[in-house]
Amino acid sequence: MPLPYLQDLRHCAGHDLDGPLAHTRPALQRLKAAKGKGEYAFLDQPDRTDDLAAIEAAAARLRKFGAIVLLGTGGSSLGARTLAALVDGGAGFWPKGTPRLVVAENVDPFGFGKMLDTLDPADTGLLAVSKSGGTGETLAQMHAILPWLEKAGPLSARACAITEPTDNALSRLAGRHAIPILEHPPTLGGRYSVLSIVGLLPAAILGLDIRALRAGAAMARDAALDDPATSLPAHGAALAAALVHKGKRTTVLCPYVDALAPFGQWFAQLWAESLGKGGEGTTPIRALGTVDQHSQLQLWLDGPADKLITIVARDSRDAGPRFAADMLADGALDWLAGRTMGDLLDVSWRATAETLARHGRPVRILTIRTLDETTLGALLMHFMLETVIAADLFGVEPYHQPAVEDGKKLARAYMKGMGAKADNG
Amino acid sequence: MPLPYLQDLRHCAGHDLDGPLAHTRPALQRLKAAKGKGEYAFLDQPDRTDDLAAIEAAAARLRKFGAIVLLGTGGSSLGARTLAALVDGGAGFWPKGTPRLVVAENVDPFGFGKMLDTLDPADTGLLAVSKSGGTGETLAQMHAILPWLEKAGPLSARACAITEPTDNALSRLAGRHAIPILEHPPTLGGRYSVLSIVGLLPAAILGLDIRALRAGAAMARDAALDDPATSLPAHGAALAAALVHKGKRTTVLCPYVDALAPFGQWFAQLWAESLGKGGEGTTPIRALGTVDQHSQLQLWLDGPADKLITIVARDSRDAGPRFAADMLADGALDWLAGRTMGDLLDVSWRATAETLARHGRPVRILTIRTLDETTLGALLMHFMLETVIAADLFGVEPYHQPAVEDGKKLARAYMKGMGAKADNG
Repeated sequence: MPLPYLQDLRHCAGHDLDGPLAHTRPALQRLKAAKGKGEYAFLDQPDRTDDLAAIEAAAARLRKFGAIVLLGTGGSSLGARTLAALVDGGAGFWPKGTPRLVVAENVDPFGFGKMLDTLDPADTGLLAVSKSGGTGETLAQMHAILPWLEKAGPLSARACAITEPTDNALSRLAGRHAIPILEHPPTLGGRYSVLSIVGLLPAAILGLDIRALRAGAAMARDAALDDPATSLPAHGAALAAALVHKGKRTTVLCPYVDALAPFGQWFAQLWAESLGKGGEGTTPIRALGTVDQHSQLQLWLDGPADKLITIVARDSRDAGPRFAADMLADGALDWLAGRTMGDLLDVSWRATAETLARHGRPVRILTIRTLDETTLGALLMHFMLETVIAADLFGVEPYHQPAVEDGKKLARAYMKGMGAKADNG
Repeated sequence: MPLPYLQDLRHCAGHDLDGPLAHTRPALQRLKAAKGKGEYAFLDQPDRTDDLAAIEAAAARLRKFGAIVLLGTGGSSLGARTLAALVDGGAGFWPKGTPRLVVAENVDPFGFGKMLDTLDPADTGLLAVSKSGGTGETLAQMHAILPWLEKAGPLSARACAITEPTDNALSRLAGRHAIPILEHPPTLGGRYSVLSIVGLLPAAILGLDIRALRAGAAMARDAALDDPATSLPAHGAALAAALVHKGKRTTVLCPYVDALAPFGQWFAQLWAESLGKGGEGTTPIRALGTVDQHSQLQLWLDGPADKLITIVARDSRDAGPRFAADMLADGALDWLAGRTMGDLLDVSWRATAETLARHGRPVRILTIRTLDETTLGALLMHFMLETVIAADLFGVEPYHQPAVEDGKKLARAYMKGMGAKADNG
């Protein structure tokens, strides 16, 4: 079966990839040797079947609610958002009969209050996700939502927690409320967890084919580890390294697929947290075509020449409504006559790529035939592999995020310094 | 009346602002001299009252629908999104009894189809916005949606178009369907149009106080034009210029207010399109606290030292649910006991700012007491002024976007090159 995506580096020909590409070989060899051994947990998620029954049982229990509130942040939320976009198109267009996923990542009390105001506790299920079980935001949200949700009935029937199998604040809280706890794989970092229960339980609740997500990821992985010459993620990592040598330190991900907008958020975390260390890394920029042609494109074309632009495009020719010549009845629109909305999208990304190339801006194009679970699984694995291979080229450790711990400690210290409250109610 | 926002540059003290600040004087003088003369249309929108009756009449007509579809892209959509977030919290939490605003910016036929599938034409109003009247995306969307919407009744009662008063494709199309046309101010560029009918009609449909939006903007403007020493936008522009001299070419806007997430999108277009010219400009990065503490913060702290981080925070102390010590019942959460969700948000942004500063990263903090129309109007004007003042320092023309025209021409050429379609139906 052919890979469900292609990578086109034609517009990057001016940048010498051969050197960095050769340097990806040790990383590929290490990844290939580690496969199946649990050493890099993200690599082995696609082959798992041991967790499917638990995922599907929990999904069946939660699927009956009209809304599912997901409490979690960063790696605990962005994968679910990305997968859910297969259902809501990334824009909140939930089909009738499907639960809608409402993701609460922040602790803005005004935003959180607005969320609860629009939900009916009797028709709401809850999923709380924190690997460590100690994420302040998620615990605070839990304490805010549980009294509201409990009014509608026992939490055991309408809630679920995902955390690593340790005695932690989330597992203790869940235990006290008889909320079932599912296991976050303990060696799997949040930003690499989308193909574990962390992403797949929300996906299964929404009715997605979680086996196909994993199968697509396995396909992308298995095609990527043999040889730099044929490895698409190795080419992507080599491109990032080659461009850094030329001072290009920002990387734009611009899908021309509405449903891939959250994918850009997921990628931004993956890339930023994995590579942004010791002065290394490049800065991810989220974008979406065609709207960013009317927003950021001017800067990409004629601002600082410091960017790689990656376009992700789906074959959309002939798709969507066709513009009849007599309906247009307007000279200004002759160029649309007989074409479809999908044709317009198609020429838009092609023209943008070509224009960027003519301005000397490096453009990579990933194309997909369709957007389904298999394709999305493959894209997710592609970018996880590209990230860890790039980490090897940059000489950084991709699985930790040491700098952010300072801020967490400081927040707790600040809280202790706040004036004591008399009223704990 | 005091300004509804403050700017804190304490963590930028290491960067010499005095030089660039002195250079903002000519721009301030030019803006002040132009005020009221129509020379810079964005500057005079806050004082307009001549358009209020038309805006309010159109709003009253469209407000009766449960959903309003806004067709428009870039400057025609991002301002409306930003204002609408005062109602839906930026996350689709529409209160009962208010129309919800559905913004269609792209021509992804799959996304557009999903949107129509979730809407009821009988309960949908339409607003189409294109300054030139020739925006391909918006025209294509119009042709796709009109047959669907017309099934529910005459378009004259349920649709409205905003375009400049010329004979253009949108105005001709609207004319043929008896759709009322309102005037896009002809000298006002899209990315500066949020305080004109382009932003205010959607805002008025959603029940926002459009006079307060303008009053807040007027207040921010009038406080900004006298003297660099007291002008907050001049300080912001000087900071951008000072940092560019040190090679810091990315600028992060990170609100810790859910409802300001779309504001970040609006700012990104404003800054990128206005300044990204001739190799100049800096690259805007969208972010949102606290989720991006779990996503991009590692990169900001320890990746390339090329960023300014602007935090926008609302006073949230004591707001939201309070965590009772007995409910927590857990040693790991002692630090939350007696505190509120708003307290947690407050210490989060303060700790993040301090940690960034300790890592030598420049941080600017804008604080607001509350988020309402007055405050948002002031913030919008602040950043429009900061942008045009920065353009003066960078030596670029902020009101045009010449490079993107190449792509538009190429798209039309590509369309002509596509195989001819036999079937125009």
